[in-house]
Amino acid sequence: MKIQLALDRVKIAEAINLAKKVEDSVDWIEVGTSLIKEFGVTSIKELKNAFPTKTIVADVKTNDNARYEFEMCFEAGADVATVMGVSPLVTIDICMEVAARYNKKVMIDLLNTSEQQKLELQKYKDAIFCLHVSKDQQEEANMANRGTDDNIFSDGLQIAAAGGITLESLEQLKATVNPEVVIVGGAITKAGNPSEAAFQFKQKILVIEGK
Amino acid sequence: MKIQLALDRVKIAEAINLAKKVEDSVDWIEVGTSLIKEFGVTSIKELKNAFPTKTIVADVKTNDNARYEFEMCFEAGADVATVMGVSPLVTIDICMEVAARYNKKVMIDLLNTSEQQKLELQKYKDAIFCLHVSKDQQEEANMANRGTDDNIFSDGLQIAAAGGITLESLEQLKATVNPEVVIVGGAITKAGNPSEAAFQFKQKILVIEGK
Repeated sequence: MKIQLALDRVKIAEAINLAKKVEDSVDWIEVGTSLIKEFGVTSIKELKNAFPTKTIVADVKTNDNARYEFEMCFEAGADVATVMGVSPLVTIDICMEVAARYNKKVMIDLLNTSEQQKLELQKYKDAIFCLHVSKDQQEEANMANRGTDDNIFSDGLQIAAAGGITLESLEQLKATVNPEVVIVGGAITKAGNPSEAAFQFKQKILVIEGK
Repeated sequence: MKIQLALDRVKIAEAINLAKKVEDSVDWIEVGTSLIKEFGVTSIKELKNAFPTKTIVADVKTNDNARYEFEMCFEAGADVATVMGVSPLVTIDICMEVAARYNKKVMIDLLNTSEQQKLELQKYKDAIFCLHVSKDQQEEANMANRGTDDNIFSDGLQIAAAGGITLESLEQLKATVNPEVVIVGGAITKAGNPSEAAFQFKQKILVIEGK
């Protein structure tokens, strides 16, 4: 399992400082939606410049205007960009086409996506599917990603999991969803010692995966 | 019917120039999603500064992290901010609460929202409901807002309509959806003479409404 560090609700300079502290332990760096909406595409450029060898995920959460938004993200240096699974399929088609042209990846965020739509989305074999319990669901409805109810996505597709993931929930997540990417935000960024927290995540994953 | 001018896929200075040309004929000015994602919250601030007496709509298309995004938009000067109707209800609850606190408005974008969810959304009596055919649906699937299939939203709720609206489609839109707000982008911004195009929209609405 790779670790994607999600950076949200901070200034760009703070995001870079945070990521510097933990870069040895994380694989991918996510420019959170809040950074993109607050600071624009420069947030993606600055993170890519700071971490040129890392995979940079632009959590742009596209719902429409996919060509414009995805080209903008990839031109800014993103390696992966996100589209909402609840979007019209024509939008996701465009994301896939733009990503293929740039030799980049699409992550489809399954937040609140219906079972019917999830079945239709499985035709996007090159996408990464993100099982996502949102911030609002975590903070207001006291939910977290327990990784139990999305087995329809187990058939050779690339899976990511996001939403309240902690060191303690990794083992169950591995046993149920077995994601290729775990997206971790607050459990690292809000830890007293982010560097130590990220290191523990990395070590735990090595143990779980028997390496 | 009010006219909401949608500004998208341009630099902030161009957006302001465009809006200056047509401000006498339009009621609300929308800072398009593409401006927010490309330039950040400064796009909202600059449009509000340029048009302090206009209603400024921040098309932030929130899917999550509603408190942060809506406070950001309202602090920047937006009078209305948008949330996706496909979002978890907890997210829309937060948008309504933040808007009430700021004495501002929520526009719920119904793009790709299920009939079941639309029924649930009608509890948000203070929201504006936007019937939306997306850019991608227009450009790739050759659709436009023909205003025929959303009669469940006719019962005293505030309605907006967006997506490929032209001078020619106004009359049918009035007869079917009867929106309080028509959201017009390209039919004004891409016209040879935007000022004249906006004036024609305004005149046509006066005729349709018998004023």
